[in-house]
Amino acid sequence: MLGASGYAGRELCALILRHPALSLAFATANDQRGTTVRIAGRDVTFASPDDARLGDVELVFSALPHGASKEWVARIQEAGARAVDLSADLRPGNGCEGIAYGLTELNRALIAGATVVANPGCYPTSILVALAPLAERGLIAEGGTIVANSASGVTGAGNSPKRELLFAEVADDFRAYGIGNTHRHLNEMRATLDGWKANADLVFTPHLLPVARGILSTITVPLTRPLDDVLQPWRETYAAEPFIEIAEATPALRDVVHRNVVRISATPLAGTRAPMLLVTSAIDNLVKGAAGQAVQNANLMLGLDETAGLPL
Amino acid sequence: MLGASGYAGRELCALILRHPALSLAFATANDQRGTTVRIAGRDVTFASPDDARLGDVELVFSALPHGASKEWVARIQEAGARAVDLSADLRPGNGCEGIAYGLTELNRALIAGATVVANPGCYPTSILVALAPLAERGLIAEGGTIVANSASGVTGAGNSPKRELLFAEVADDFRAYGIGNTHRHLNEMRATLDGWKANADLVFTPHLLPVARGILSTITVPLTRPLDDVLQPWRETYAAEPFIEIAEATPALRDVVHRNVVRISATPLAGTRAPMLLVTSAIDNLVKGAAGQAVQNANLMLGLDETAGLPL
Amino acid sequence: MLGASGYAGRELCALILRHPALSLAFATANDQRGTTVRIAGRDVTFASPDDARLGDVELVFSALPHGASKEWVARIQEAGARAVDLSADLRPGNGCEGIAYGLTELNRALIAGATVVANPGCYPTSILVALAPLAERGLIAEGGTIVANSASGVTGAGNSPKRELLFAEVADDFRAYGIGNTHRHLNEMRATLDGWKANADLVFTPHLLPVARGILSTITVPLTRPLDDVLQPWRETYAAEPFIEIAEATPALRDVVHRNVVRISATPLAGTRAPMLLVTSAIDNLVKGAAGQAVQNANLMLGLDETAGLPL
Amino acid sequence: MLGASGYAGRELCALILRHPALSLAFATANDQRGTTVRIAGRDVTFASPDDARLGDVELVFSALPHGASKEWVARIQEAGARAVDLSADLRPGNGCEGIAYGLTELNRALIAGATVVANPGCYPTSILVALAPLAERGLIAEGGTIVANSASGVTGAGNSPKRELLFAEVADDFRAYGIGNTHRHLNEMRATLDGWKANADLVFTPHLLPVARGILSTITVPLTRPLDDVLQPWRETYAAEPFIEIAEATPALRDVVHRNVVRISATPLAGTRAPMLLVTSAIDNLVKGAAGQAVQNANLMLGLDETAGLPL
Repeated sequence: MLGASGYAGRELCALILRHPALSLAFATANDQRGTTVRIAGRDVTFASPDDARLGDVELVFSALPHGASKEWVARIQEAGARAVDLSADLRPGNGCEGIAYGLTELNRALIAGATVVANPGCYPTSILVALAPLAERGLIAEGGTIVANSASGVTGAGNSPKRELLFAEVADDFRAYGIGNTHRHLNEMRATLDGWKANADLVFTPHLLPVARGILSTITVPLTRPLDDVLQPWRETYAAEPFIEIAEATPALRDVVHRNVVRISATPLAGTRAPMLLVTSAIDNLVKGAAGQAVQNANLMLGLDETAGLPL
Repeated sequence: MLGASGYAGRELCALILRHPALSLAFATANDQRGTTVRIAGRDVTFASPDDARLGDVELVFSALPHGASKEWVARIQEAGARAVDLSADLRPGNGCEGIAYGLTELNRALIAGATVVANPGCYPTSILVALAPLAERGLIAEGGTIVANSASGVTGAGNSPKRELLFAEVADDFRAYGIGNTHRHLNEMRATLDGWKANADLVFTPHLLPVARGILSTITVPLTRPLDDVLQPWRETYAAEPFIEIAEATPALRDVVHRNVVRISATPLAGTRAPMLLVTSAIDNLVKGAAGQAVQNANLMLGLDETAGLPL
Repeated sequence: MLGASGYAGRELCALILRHPALSLAFATANDQRGTTVRIAGRDVTFASPDDARLGDVELVFSALPHGASKEWVARIQEAGARAVDLSADLRPGNGCEGIAYGLTELNRALIAGATVVANPGCYPTSILVALAPLAERGLIAEGGTIVANSASGVTGAGNSPKRELLFAEVADDFRAYGIGNTHRHLNEMRATLDGWKANADLVFTPHLLPVARGILSTITVPLTRPLDDVLQPWRETYAAEPFIEIAEATPALRDVVHRNVVRISATPLAGTRAPMLLVTSAIDNLVKGAAGQAVQNANLMLGLDETAGLPL
Repeated sequence: MLGASGYAGRELCALILRHPALSLAFATANDQRGTTVRIAGRDVTFASPDDARLGDVELVFSALPHGASKEWVARIQEAGARAVDLSADLRPGNGCEGIAYGLTELNRALIAGATVVANPGCYPTSILVALAPLAERGLIAEGGTIVANSASGVTGAGNSPKRELLFAEVADDFRAYGIGNTHRHLNEMRATLDGWKANADLVFTPHLLPVARGILSTITVPLTRPLDDVLQPWRETYAAEPFIEIAEATPALRDVVHRNVVRISATPLAGTRAPMLLVTSAIDNLVKGAAGQAVQNANLMLGLDETAGLPL
């Protein structure tokens, strides 16, 4: 894999090392090349990206930074390998349409046959998987506004040393960022909602939590009509899904950390003129929000059992 | 004061003890009566409520639990004292209209002349102070939906020993609660918005943060028209207010903890059909959200300098 | 198992449910009887202890409170089952000598043949496993003083709702407790050191950390002579042990949480007259310090692979 | 002041800005020069050290990094100003003997008349203030070993962006560092103990806590004889000290954070051959452990009330 030294990169290394059918051919990390770290009980020495033997492997995971990934995916393809790219570069709404978007449960056929898969962002995974059952039933009110507030653990911001991510800066604090609908993940979500013909506005505000892992998204959705059985759309759409959990109680981070699941609940909102739903959705940003879904997609692409090597 | 053993009660004791013009006549705590605790460098022995000499004091603060406060406020009035009640019992929308509602900056005249003031809830303080400048200018779109997501530190849930508030239960976690517009504070906010003729729906979802103190509210507001200068409504309304801070940058908990302020920012939301604003508002739930505002109200009622004894 | 509702009890339930060769016949919890909780992806309904069919099982784990366990172990024996008792009741130094003490790596033969095993305390596990290689080589200076400072995550204090364990009380804090050599685990450690003929004093001071899990013990040991190869005693004694890790670098909690290991390092202390060693030792208090070691002991007693069902 | 951008530097800026008799002439921070930050409700723009007008002020605080401070103190003296240096450069045991060591309560006369004061390290403040009453009474056993284990909040490690200080690295963790008696503060403590004729070995092991602020030191001391009244040495030595608190109960971080105090308790250790004492001592590493004590020393040097501007 390429770009193995970040939090998502290491999580992915660990999943590959523990995977029954995958083996780790190389793990690159340009600024830490030559460094040996302990991952999943094994010593992993980071290689220079230039030493990555792209042609010797069936599939390359890239967790390179946004902007740097695109050209590497081209090289991977030239070398004849398939690619799962964890960056934003190739996701819908980012100027590279036509690449399979790796929301596994929703794009399975496309992913299985793809040579390149754009692995979704962590926030979009938590929000789009939660919205899809409403969208596919035409339940989202035309012209309404979906308001998604998400809060993420700090690993979502990466492990480059930045002052604002120091323990003493983050502890005991909570703040919004990317305010005013400016976060990078917004394009990806809007393009996907458009693809689903969900003709609603989306307001998205991420927040930084003083925890290491996990995302909780709290989403209000204007409906076309009240629902009799509020959880039924999710129960139907995701009936056979091993990695989607529909819960009566609103999910918490502790329900999902270290697991490759999206846990979703929904409840009607009392006292509003038009019918509205409160949908809550929790994931581990490093697992279902990044490395876990990447492995899930790779399993599909390689014809393996989709659940192979993934923590339930 | 009555009900001094909770987090808000102790914070209030500390403020009274440090106040230049107030002195603490008694501090009751029924289940901890006889216990001596150290507050603000002084020994405070909790008395039985039955031993509270209500008639000997000018003003009684009550931080008794919701439900229990109402009858005590009646006794305080019978004894000839004035009261600041921190419970929800007498707040607007809770069946006891006509009591002065202690959002100090917005109800100053009423509070100054009142014998009983219903001190606002912590969430309503953060949300209503943020919304008032929009409401009073008629800027909130008729029939639109205000979506307020708040996240609070754990002291907001009190200090009664409950399993779900243990450190090992709360740490590393984040969850919504009071979902579906069911939180006790909703009535108080709706009644106040109605009073302001803000004819919009309100969706309110509180969350529990793994921090001790602080509330951040992230609020989307549908507007009647775009604003040229987005902060101008707050700058105008709160021009001379010592306890309201208008900030360019979105506020964080660390900007406000241990201080009697509401810190507010606002930014337009890009990419929505109708104009919408993102308003963020931060307070310390125990200070401006409870004990601090109670002292601010008492200062007004007693003809003292409104800022006396309050931490800026 | 008996006493399944505490933190160690639930951890043990989870290990049993995931164990390849064990199955959970019953899980009692007197004050939560009838309650169903989700453990390891399964619904577990707590039974009344009176409904526990002690005679129908091969082995009973008891995680009952100290004091209550002793009589239940007698009942288990009468019913013809074997027992692993996680309380302090039957451990050495507590008035019930002759019971096999379940420091697995050090008492393997005794444990394998025992009908009752007293599972060690969490602190003693971290300290005694670290000291044994020095004691068995006669390296601890006669008449010297071993100083053991330990810091534990909050789950070590159990999950009964107590005010001092609330999030807002523990967060951002650190304190010693059981000071002056008064902690319950001291007897168990002294009796064991005596059994090893380690004729040294022991000073033990536990501390409460604002984390959920993990114990780090920092131990100074007066030596009879300087060591050429400081880690050699541990490397030799624990050469073939799957659950003991000897590390060059001083261990941290994150090296051991959720794993059934003791991780140990040692370094000479510069600038002291007589030779002294600093030994650091880390465990997960709920795994190797409680439930994990209990399963390890049960595996031995039942003739199973000692590592079966244990997280490395 | 020089070196104002670190955690101690900013704390010191804040104390100066709030001080009734001091004013802040300049605040330098070489790598952040030109940056304006908000400190104590005021805008502070960091200057280049080259622009510091050392000759225009009475006293300069230097919080420059270790190694860089020494030459600046020389420049300050040449410019005719007095200096309080917060680095280790001029402290006892570091090659620059003869400089007044700023343990205020213990060296008052020397400090009052000094032109340069070496402000003590945070760990030494917590440990030496705790040991002095025993040392001055000759109560520390000749040739014995004092074992000091300290745990510090992360601000003690500074605010330079380092990967190992990121939130996701520090949270939920606890580890020792500077093991084997190698920490920089050891020289300073040994030299001071030698100066006190306390002829005992010292073992010092610092630890990193997942909290922002505070140091707790847990110290075992071999005594020449048992004490009848265990707290009496401290009560006598520090009888009139406003910034030293002697407590029956072992102190916790929350007792001292944001305050310029050392809080000390002591208890005899049961079950040891020779008499030993457990002494616990807590400070705020940024206040009494750095900026607060620096102001306390400056107050003395400038003939001001020693408590001026200091948070009790």
